[in-house]
Amino acid sequence: MGSVDKKLQVLLVGSGAIGTMVAYALEKGGKAEVAAVLRSNFEAVFDNGFTIQSVDHGKIKDWRPTSILDSIPSVNEESWRAPYDYVIVTTKNIPDIPPSLPDLIAPAITPGHTAIALIQNGLNIERPFFSVFPTNPVLSGITFMGAIESPPGTINHHNHDRTYIGVFRNPAATPNQKDIAIHAADDLVNAYRACGPNVDCTYEPNVPYSRWRKLLYNASYNGVAAILGIDTSRMRFSEHIIDDLIRPLMQEIRATAKAAAGVELEEELIETMITADGYDKFFKPSMLQDVEKGQFIEFENLVGEPLREAQRAGVATPTLKVVYGLLKGLQFKAMEGNMEEVVVPRSGEGLRYGGCGKS
Amino acid sequence: MGSVDKKLQVLLVGSGAIGTMVAYALEKGGKAEVAAVLRSNFEAVFDNGFTIQSVDHGKIKDWRPTSILDSIPSVNEESWRAPYDYVIVTTKNIPDIPPSLPDLIAPAITPGHTAIALIQNGLNIERPFFSVFPTNPVLSGITFMGAIESPPGTINHHNHDRTYIGVFRNPAATPNQKDIAIHAADDLVNAYRACGPNVDCTYEPNVPYSRWRKLLYNASYNGVAAILGIDTSRMRFSEHIIDDLIRPLMQEIRATAKAAAGVELEEELIETMITADGYDKFFKPSMLQDVEKGQFIEFENLVGEPLREAQRAGVATPTLKVVYGLLKGLQFKAMEGNMEEVVVPRSGEGLRYGGCGKS
Repeated sequence: MGSVDKKLQVLLVGSGAIGTMVAYALEKGGKAEVAAVLRSNFEAVFDNGFTIQSVDHGKIKDWRPTSILDSIPSVNEESWRAPYDYVIVTTKNIPDIPPSLPDLIAPAITPGHTAIALIQNGLNIERPFFSVFPTNPVLSGITFMGAIESPPGTINHHNHDRTYIGVFRNPAATPNQKDIAIHAADDLVNAYRACGPNVDCTYEPNVPYSRWRKLLYNASYNGVAAILGIDTSRMRFSEHIIDDLIRPLMQEIRATAKAAAGVELEEELIETMITADGYDKFFKPSMLQDVEKGQFIEFENLVGEPLREAQRAGVATPTLKVVYGLLKGLQFKAMEGNMEEVVVPRSGEGLRYGGCGKS
Repeated sequence: MGSVDKKLQVLLVGSGAIGTMVAYALEKGGKAEVAAVLRSNFEAVFDNGFTIQSVDHGKIKDWRPTSILDSIPSVNEESWRAPYDYVIVTTKNIPDIPPSLPDLIAPAITPGHTAIALIQNGLNIERPFFSVFPTNPVLSGITFMGAIESPPGTINHHNHDRTYIGVFRNPAATPNQKDIAIHAADDLVNAYRACGPNVDCTYEPNVPYSRWRKLLYNASYNGVAAILGIDTSRMRFSEHIIDDLIRPLMQEIRATAKAAAGVELEEELIETMITADGYDKFFKPSMLQDVEKGQFIEFENLVGEPLREAQRAGVATPTLKVVYGLLKGLQFKAMEGNMEEVVVPRSGEGLRYGGCGKS
């Protein structure tokens, strides 16, 4: 996959702020050609390209990837299209809301060829891909870059791009398939790095460690921020939100990582993570941003999967359990707001809890 | 206290929707004279009286209690004023926000005479009064009436008035003081009932039972509604909010009532309470209404006190604990919104969690 002469053929699914900066880095490096699937920002970008203000790349006007698509392209024997070397997925991960990501990208995957790179948060996100695409490498991407898109097509990339790419361990993979996957990850890292020294893109040999490590933050701050509607600096100023909720959640994640996955997260990491955001940033984690926009939250892989791993391993995670229940409640609200088929009936007739008990 | 000829002298503190309906019932019965302390609605009521639409009393225009005050009156040796037989408190109970209720009403209390009736939700609300007013009876009022005031002075009393008045058990009371307290409760019930058969006012002999029973609802639905921002019907339609949060909370309250207070809440009560609200009402419990108005929530006596009782008695209440931590976070938000002295600093310098740990 990929040679000195031929550019990597990349399909990007999810060209919001993060995805677009990934596409920009790959194209800038000159080793990849990116076809980006746009949705809400298609018209804006089709007309005027992206307008980017980037801490790593500077000010860029009217930028477009090699091609702009308004839907997932189909690559099969009947189509004229060459196979994609990579499908990079940078959408939110909401497995509880159809369609599923594997179904969505399936038309663009060439079996035995395309590497699927999931630059997404959360635990066990690779599992649905293993079963649908058993002959394709599935790569892990973790990025710490900060970027927001507003209005559509205008991106403010405000936090340095630090991205780790590795291979998700597929228990069913042959040794040869494992080699191929590692090479696919390596090639992608090299293509990414080619954009210059301002961006840190690194091969990650220990994907479970890095994913559990990031969960320390995402299962605690991200979840509680979504529930309470407050930024991480206010939580830190309150102190009790850290002591009563954030630290217990981090401790539960740490215990689960060890028992369920054999991942040792250093104890000091907890205090480090508590003050990880710049205090003066008053940072709103991603799920809070989604709640404020009335959008779905990706709580199943950030909180639900670690909770289920804990239950499998017999680890007590009382705080995580309640936070999960509440986030599921927030998702229920978002469903009512976003899905026409979710209509709350005005009468309780026929509902499990529809009767009247009189207090 | 109170005779056939002399009307009971009542001071009402907290003349919102519930308090005003209590005052109306007492005045209508003809056995009590009510002086009501008004705050936000003083001007509206001073000018035009209350406008009431009541399920129990019908349509009432331009109604005023015997007197309207804009602050707590002082009753002491130097003042001309006769002692109050009762001070009825119908404000929200927010012991975490000064001033304390005992401090607030102290000028109106005549030691050894005035009975203090707390028509308020929650556990252990009587304790601060026992120490400040050791020679005064402290009465418990639990009401199931539903009423809202909007705009100021206009009250919609939409749910039948069912009120239980009893005596808080004061461990330091002499047998004679206990008798006096029971008589004070009896006299108040009789004065209340005198308004006619539409209102149910009953002497409650078992105050701990009735308070813990109401906590089944207030520590579960009321708390979760405030956190999630959804009414009880939507929670019931979702089903998972009931199964994951509401029922576990009720079970924890039931276990705590037994272990900490020897109060046996029947197991069937839990399913009864789950469907206690009319499904078609889409009812928003009081703390949710407060959150929506940006006001303080009375979570310390609804959730904090049962949690502390559980901890003292060694009962595991993992759900209650997390819900308490989150409600305290919501109160922190309300403090920032309502108290000038609570200012979140823009820099983390000097704060316990103000440093930067880098993730």
